[in-house]
Amino acid sequence: MRIIIIGGVAAGTKAAAKAHRVDPNHEIIIYQDEAEVSYSACGLPYVISGVIDDGRKIVIRQPEDFAKEGIKVYTRYRVTSIDNAKQQLRVKNLESNSEELVDYDRLILATGACPIVPNIEGISLEGVLTLRNISDLGRFKTLLTTMHPKKAVIIGAGYIGLELAESFHELNIKTTIIEKATRILPKFDTEMVQPVHDHLLENQVEIILGDGLDKLHGENGRVIAVETESGKMIPADLVVIAIGVKPNVELAKAAGIELGKTGAIAVDSRMETRTPGIFAAGDCCETVNRITGKPIWMPLGDIANLQGRVAGENVAGGNAHFPGVFGTAIFKTFKLTVAITGLSEQAAQEAGFKPVSIVMKGTDRARYYPGRQEYALKLIADRQGGRLLGAQVIGSGNVDKMIDIAATALLGKLTCADMENADLAYSPPFSPVLSTIIVAAGILKSKLV
Amino acid sequence: MRIIIIGGVAAGTKAAAKAHRVDPNHEIIIYQDEAEVSYSACGLPYVISGVIDDGRKIVIRQPEDFAKEGIKVYTRYRVTSIDNAKQQLRVKNLESNSEELVDYDRLILATGACPIVPNIEGISLEGVLTLRNISDLGRFKTLLTTMHPKKAVIIGAGYIGLELAESFHELNIKTTIIEKATRILPKFDTEMVQPVHDHLLENQVEIILGDGLDKLHGENGRVIAVETESGKMIPADLVVIAIGVKPNVELAKAAGIELGKTGAIAVDSRMETRTPGIFAAGDCCETVNRITGKPIWMPLGDIANLQGRVAGENVAGGNAHFPGVFGTAIFKTFKLTVAITGLSEQAAQEAGFKPVSIVMKGTDRARYYPGRQEYALKLIADRQGGRLLGAQVIGSGNVDKMIDIAATALLGKLTCADMENADLAYSPPFSPVLSTIIVAAGILKSKLV
Repeated sequence: MRIIIIGGVAAGTKAAAKAHRVDPNHEIIIYQDEAEVSYSACGLPYVISGVIDDGRKIVIRQPEDFAKEGIKVYTRYRVTSIDNAKQQLRVKNLESNSEELVDYDRLILATGACPIVPNIEGISLEGVLTLRNISDLGRFKTLLTTMHPKKAVIIGAGYIGLELAESFHELNIKTTIIEKATRILPKFDTEMVQPVHDHLLENQVEIILGDGLDKLHGENGRVIAVETESGKMIPADLVVIAIGVKPNVELAKAAGIELGKTGAIAVDSRMETRTPGIFAAGDCCETVNRITGKPIWMPLGDIANLQGRVAGENVAGGNAHFPGVFGTAIFKTFKLTVAITGLSEQAAQEAGFKPVSIVMKGTDRARYYPGRQEYALKLIADRQGGRLLGAQVIGSGNVDKMIDIAATALLGKLTCADMENADLAYSPPFSPVLSTIIVAAGILKSKLV
Repeated sequence: MRIIIIGGVAAGTKAAAKAHRVDPNHEIIIYQDEAEVSYSACGLPYVISGVIDDGRKIVIRQPEDFAKEGIKVYTRYRVTSIDNAKQQLRVKNLESNSEELVDYDRLILATGACPIVPNIEGISLEGVLTLRNISDLGRFKTLLTTMHPKKAVIIGAGYIGLELAESFHELNIKTTIIEKATRILPKFDTEMVQPVHDHLLENQVEIILGDGLDKLHGENGRVIAVETESGKMIPADLVVIAIGVKPNVELAKAAGIELGKTGAIAVDSRMETRTPGIFAAGDCCETVNRITGKPIWMPLGDIANLQGRVAGENVAGGNAHFPGVFGTAIFKTFKLTVAITGLSEQAAQEAGFKPVSIVMKGTDRARYYPGRQEYALKLIADRQGGRLLGAQVIGSGNVDKMIDIAATALLGKLTCADMENADLAYSPPFSPVLSTIIVAAGILKSKLV
């Protein structure tokens, strides 16, 4: 059986490896339009800052590594159309521009997502970049080493924007973030976001809220300033468009493969599209929010890996299921770690729950143990029954630990009463005697009906 | 109503605070035979090493702090007997040696535990110590500053023994550990323990296994050597007895309060003893292992706090339940963190499960992100159905995070299949793209029937 996988970054390569492990007799082919496969896009901001000293480090595996397992990887090949009736692809060699038709038995779409780039004046000027893949990284590195930018504007105050603000700070580039919404990080509840905002200001990042990108001004083909919708002019020799990403679904759409409500490819829990025999995984497809049961699009590297594993198993003859996500995410900006899992209080309300919540300060060590750091934990539960619905953790120290405890609690459908008596690991270097999440759950329990 | 609490370290003070919060109209009295109340015994090894620069820091609250809430704390008062029929205590002032009778309406026993000290020749020599409470700390500090010991022997290779080995190393005291069992850390599975053993050796700690303490030799009233059961003589100017603790149950026993199978006071989930109106909490009472359903004695500070909270609520008229423990524990020795939750593979077998397990190396960051550290994770599941039964994590980096994810998974009765698709927080500085526990759960799933 010939399995073809379109896209070779996270979901595609994971699917290939899994399919091969399930049944090494299948022929497995990956078509990837970029020159690199199997890289960690999440590492890109750290390569730009220099924290990761060599961009090649974020490339996990080379085509030769796949070849050893009998997985054929074609880089710089683009699949331009799918004929599902004939089970045939049209594939273009991007180097030679030649095209060929290739038959498949099973297909996995792992076409990923791409940055949303507004069609505005000046968008093609030199110095205007996005950060999504290895080619973008090359453009960044070239710009940084040849032009030595001094003033950057980042359009969009999401994860990538805030990670890049730190990267630019490391490079002594003065940075302004412009965000159309009235606050940064709209997935978080309002009261949790202010400390992040303040922390950015403390690190000399300027933030303009409630204002969008109107046009870009240039000189000799290079960007020199950003003009906002309200008419502000901000000088810039580097502009990053980071207003969000969209799923790459054109190929699927043209082939009549159904999209979901989120605009990404619709799949069942086996990662099969509505077109039998064609699977999808990663940033190009949607999934289910395990709390609301509603479709959600969650284009993140770890989810892509989980979905790729399931699609790879099923395409090779197995029967695995991907149950959906809780929307867990984490990122770092300067000294703050910012993390979320489940629903925010606002999202819980919108989903029809009657949430109660608590925000409390926590610490990662006993209060007498040196070097301890603080964070704020918000815990959200359903007023009826007390089931935990979500958590947000922002600060220093073990933010990642707290959010993963909360994410595991959501997975176990635990209530405040359950968490109040959790048996978590205590010793002075690792935790206060009662973990913050235990204390928070106890107080939250008292707010239930 | 007058509530009397016997013991004022962890469970006792927590119970008092909780009872006061539930109903501030009750009269609440704590009798504590030590001079200090409300301190963190878990911090003691770090005061000895100097990591915590002042022993007073591990005292959380003073009697005056309790007095502000109307809780009366009598330090250096010992309850010598309980007359349950009369609801009356005999209380001795340890300073004046005077005794009085005090009536109570409700009683909480929080008498704690004390080190097991073998009745052998030389046990009373100067330089032979235990480490359990603030008085012990005083003796340690005096000895360290006046005698400047050079060679220590620690009897017992449990948590306290291994924590102290590190403390002594910090103080340039050459240390030998003697353990009667044939390996250190018997609660862990054998294959997990060897790296800890090796790490101790690397740090110049000598370890003698399968040999017990026979007698102590002295000169001018001071210890100079340890003689083992096999006849080994080990020079020592400091000997620490750390072979374990036992619950302080004499008072309860004399009053006819029933003990459990473990030898600690038997309680129900409300923390009430078999004698109605008398509650117990903390190291003096037993609890339930939530996986086996069997009684277990788990004398740890965090559990004492959880139980104290429940006893305090119930004694004041509430109705809280403590559901038991998973046996979660963590400690640090030199550069290694050692943690466990649930059953070891051996304990699972003994409890009648048919466990399967996996040991795998894990890391706390993306493999290309600088500063990452490694640990070994052992995950144990029930072959039938795949419910997770336990985890052990040993190494550097986020050991505490891994064990708390596992402990929360046990709380949620999660299976390998559940954990395989956990939605944990990923970003390169905080985790590999798939958390080690996710990968381990996936592999373990393939070993199930």
